[in-house]
Amino acid sequence: MEKGKMGEIRKDWVTNRWVIFSPARAKRPSDFKSKSPATPTQQQYQQSCPFCLGNEHDCAPEIFRVPPDDPKWNLRVIQNMYPALSRADVPVPVPAQEESYSSLGQVMTGFGFHDVVVETPLHSVQLSDLSPTQIAHVLRAYTTRIQHLITNHSIKYVQVFKNHGASAGASMSHSHSQMMALPIVPPAVAARLDSMKDYFNRTGKCSICEFNSNDLLIHASPHFISIVPYAATFPFEMWIIPLTHSPHFHELDADKAVDLGGILKLMLRKMALQLNNPPFNFMIQTSPLQDGASELPHSHWFLQIIPQLSVAAGFEIGTGCYINPVFPEDAAKVLREVNVLPLEGDD
Amino acid sequence: MEKGKMGEIRKDWVTNRWVIFSPARAKRPSDFKSKSPATPTQQQYQQSCPFCLGNEHDCAPEIFRVPPDDPKWNLRVIQNMYPALSRADVPVPVPAQEESYSSLGQVMTGFGFHDVVVETPLHSVQLSDLSPTQIAHVLRAYTTRIQHLITNHSIKYVQVFKNHGASAGASMSHSHSQMMALPIVPPAVAARLDSMKDYFNRTGKCSICEFNSNDLLIHASPHFISIVPYAATFPFEMWIIPLTHSPHFHELDADKAVDLGGILKLMLRKMALQLNNPPFNFMIQTSPLQDGASELPHSHWFLQIIPQLSVAAGFEIGTGCYINPVFPEDAAKVLREVNVLPLEGDD
Repeated sequence: MEKGKMGEIRKDWVTNRWVIFSPARAKRPSDFKSKSPATPTQQQYQQSCPFCLGNEHDCAPEIFRVPPDDPKWNLRVIQNMYPALSRADVPVPVPAQEESYSSLGQVMTGFGFHDVVVETPLHSVQLSDLSPTQIAHVLRAYTTRIQHLITNHSIKYVQVFKNHGASAGASMSHSHSQMMALPIVPPAVAARLDSMKDYFNRTGKCSICEFNSNDLLIHASPHFISIVPYAATFPFEMWIIPLTHSPHFHELDADKAVDLGGILKLMLRKMALQLNNPPFNFMIQTSPLQDGASELPHSHWFLQIIPQLSVAAGFEIGTGCYINPVFPEDAAKVLREVNVLPLEGDD
Repeated sequence: MEKGKMGEIRKDWVTNRWVIFSPARAKRPSDFKSKSPATPTQQQYQQSCPFCLGNEHDCAPEIFRVPPDDPKWNLRVIQNMYPALSRADVPVPVPAQEESYSSLGQVMTGFGFHDVVVETPLHSVQLSDLSPTQIAHVLRAYTTRIQHLITNHSIKYVQVFKNHGASAGASMSHSHSQMMALPIVPPAVAARLDSMKDYFNRTGKCSICEFNSNDLLIHASPHFISIVPYAATFPFEMWIIPLTHSPHFHELDADKAVDLGGILKLMLRKMALQLNNPPFNFMIQTSPLQDGASELPHSHWFLQIIPQLSVAAGFEIGTGCYINPVFPEDAAKVLREVNVLPLEGDD
């Protein structure tokens, strides 16, 4: 086995935290010139951008597009050209060739899937510019792809996420999101599930179904609410929560996807107006794929939005404890009161 | 209780992660003009810098200085002007005035101590410019202050950390480090201790005492080794580890402090040479204060250094799992081979 070609997933006995070693990621290009937020471009097409309509040959293989087989596609799901995990590897522990490594930690080969969802064919369009129905197509592309991945029983969890702006970790400015399918249930997910299970065992109720604070509410739609969480880790962190109990995001149906598209668009626009178009991340927090809904009365998926306003520094890295200068009730009040006017073309 | 004046420490039932809400932190000034790494200044004194010799009246109260009572001090330990935790608060849970909050999470008042160690009187000097003996004085200032804090039985853990450069979270360019004394054992510390305890229960040995990889070794001094950890979370992460088993950093004696000062200086200079003077964080990873050494055969303190080369983005926030493009063996080899020449004035 030649190192530097094949990735690994390791943890040591001290931090007990799985880390993905991915030499391929170091070779990624970036079209951002600085670490400052991307300035919106007016150009619909950039010759150098592989995600633009017409440049499909510069991308890694396509998984599917919407509409299917249409050269004038609205969105594409493709393989990541610089994947953090490799679909070629086998999901078994690397044989302990060097005995010394056993006292150092644990290792697996870097198996998994790392896909990209190109949300629009146009370089100048951002996710929040799309209509609720168009955003619903992006959300349904996530669920369709998860339905594919679930058939591989080595895949335990799929993390859907979006990095917007260079300082939020995006290396390409063309609007896109990512999906990483993992052979492990990652540590933050395991900790979240344990905590929600503790609450369920104590009270017989799902901690998210129990949410009942008007102070923390931002907006309510027919099937969702958006809130600032009670112990928000970051200033102006937001969660979008389905009103009925649902452990798995990938069960989202077409009607609810349009409703979710609408409330997601509203939250992104409120955030952009209030915080001057900040770089941001969103993450879909769901349940392990191979667990059935009946085993998960305590687990309720949600979509988490975090504007990148601060950096994790020595205190946060050392303790895992975060300092937030903005009380959640105050952030919720501000976000509730931001007035977003309907855009032309919204359905 | 007037909100917005008193901080709180909260966790919710989903993430189960304590978050410090500190409105005072929002008011902090910064002397960095941009988010780019600080360019070293040649000026020994800046009129606007409260940490410079002669500007002591612009700081929050002093706790002690070295040498004691000397107007020409070498270092000062002072209160943070914008503390994330307040020494005035009482470390008891806030009474549940609003019943609705009990289903949302748990809350404590934001009690604790947040101190600053001004490492040098001169604006132009960085920690790695000091001699090993001078760095030892900084390290011994940490241990002296922890010995004070240990007498307050509400304080469970002290996090010592340094943020160097604006993008590593520093708000002041004058060389300094910070100490945060907490009424909780923070989550990353609890997870580290649990993991090391598991290893001990399985093998009867301390996982750090067991370290034995030449591939991961950078340097050895009489009392310490520096390594790249087997599952390094960040590229070029380094740990400095005492060779003999020791759970608590604050037991460091004067001789070992000089040795640690020397190896810390060497690692900071190797990192600066190899990585072009990057912003960085260091953290002292120690054990809960109120636990005796005899209860901690599994816990071994170390100093962790992290150059800030990447950002935590959606994947890392969502999963708690990190992607590192550099294999630890490769980073260790590079750092081992960086040739640092002795500086004039080094002892």
